[in-house]
Amino acid sequence: MKLVLVRHGESEWNKLNLFTGWTDVELSDKGVEEAKAGGRALKEAGFDFDLCYTSYLKRAIHTLNYILSEMDREWLPVTKTWKLNERHYGALQGLNKSETAAKYGEDQVKIWRRSFDVQPPALEASDDRNPANQDAYRNESKDELPLSESLKTTIERAVPYYEQEILPKMKEGKRVLIAAHGNSLRALVKYFEGLSDEEIVSVNIPTGVPLVYTFDDNGHFVSKEYLGDQAAIEAKMAAVANQGSVKK
Amino acid sequence: MKLVLVRHGESEWNKLNLFTGWTDVELSDKGVEEAKAGGRALKEAGFDFDLCYTSYLKRAIHTLNYILSEMDREWLPVTKTWKLNERHYGALQGLNKSETAAKYGEDQVKIWRRSFDVQPPALEASDDRNPANQDAYRNESKDELPLSESLKTTIERAVPYYEQEILPKMKEGKRVLIAAHGNSLRALVKYFEGLSDEEIVSVNIPTGVPLVYTFDDNGHFVSKEYLGDQAAIEAKMAAVANQGSVKK
Repeated sequence: MKLVLVRHGESEWNKLNLFTGWTDVELSDKGVEEAKAGGRALKEAGFDFDLCYTSYLKRAIHTLNYILSEMDREWLPVTKTWKLNERHYGALQGLNKSETAAKYGEDQVKIWRRSFDVQPPALEASDDRNPANQDAYRNESKDELPLSESLKTTIERAVPYYEQEILPKMKEGKRVLIAAHGNSLRALVKYFEGLSDEEIVSVNIPTGVPLVYTFDDNGHFVSKEYLGDQAAIEAKMAAVANQGSVKK
Repeated sequence: MKLVLVRHGESEWNKLNLFTGWTDVELSDKGVEEAKAGGRALKEAGFDFDLCYTSYLKRAIHTLNYILSEMDREWLPVTKTWKLNERHYGALQGLNKSETAAKYGEDQVKIWRRSFDVQPPALEASDDRNPANQDAYRNESKDELPLSESLKTTIERAVPYYEQEILPKMKEGKRVLIAAHGNSLRALVKYFEGLSDEEIVSVNIPTGVPLVYTFDDNGHFVSKEYLGDQAAIEAKMAAVANQGSVKK
């Protein structure tokens, strides 16, 4: 069984170095090109799919749309779920990463960005940024929606979704493509590879590069592979790891 | 209960005056603008939706995507079905409408385009254009897929889909948006309004203009309304009616 993950390309807020989380920002022009390149890489490698999954956030939805367009597969069924959303960044959403590092210290920002179980400061319930106050989440159970998330709590909603909704389809023989976010994909990567809490926080998934997992028939990890030029992929991983510094 | 229908905007082949049918062509730049205008009209009129339906053809899928983008509703669930595809134009697909009119006579083309139950010449089963030979239809029942369709046979697959899949959701209180094609929407319009076989062939649905139906609780037609500038809508309907002429 194979499963392909793609992290969305650069967004307008990545470019501005802002904490994004569940803020529903557009892909930048570069992000669009990254998505298209991911689609071409999948097409050239002969991949095909039966089912696609993405988040409620347009930077992931558009990434998937551009991939399907490049693969001439726009008729494929797409399921959208908030369970694949980016980690909720709480009250940090909208703040500049470098300014936040200058104000709170690089160490504190590193803890918020890269610790396993520390949540950023939570939103007030009355905040417009609270998903319980937003149209996109109006049909979701209010007590499940977060005011802030750590990687740990992101895992606690993304992995059950995978186990309950996606893995059964793969066991039926469906070929699945997931277009999502740095931390919701990290949640899956940790689960697939049995990484420790310490190991997963230093995993950097490059944007727009198809990450192909191979599993045995029971869904156990066998191998993984990034599609594309390997040196360019290494450079992308390093760039993501440096975003938290005061000077970019 | 309300239901909104939108016919996709101008495609690259509309612009070239070719018979399109199930050929999966892109929207033209004008078609993109029509779709966005439709989305803005819905937003300005305060519409919102719970479920969206479209065809397997990218000109309808993209129209829906542009509408949802304008409405900031890209997280809405979208169901794609070939039952809402355009009428299959059989062996005419890819031929120029004016040249076909010059060769076979305007009367014959008018019969193919506007009769209720005459199918255009059918594709050979071995033809690459036969949906049974195309990836997009690989999971569909081969004996249901057409080699050519009349408006009558289009109705015979679009209306049961509406009755079985869409109407029950509307009765549950779901607000539905359908982005589809001239003839699959005509099929629904005939059914909603109880039009005769003669009446429906002269109905011209303008592109990109939201058509809002109001039904009673049993799903019976109460009224309909086009959203937008009424004079511009009339001009669009007249333009569609003239496409079959030798000279445009």
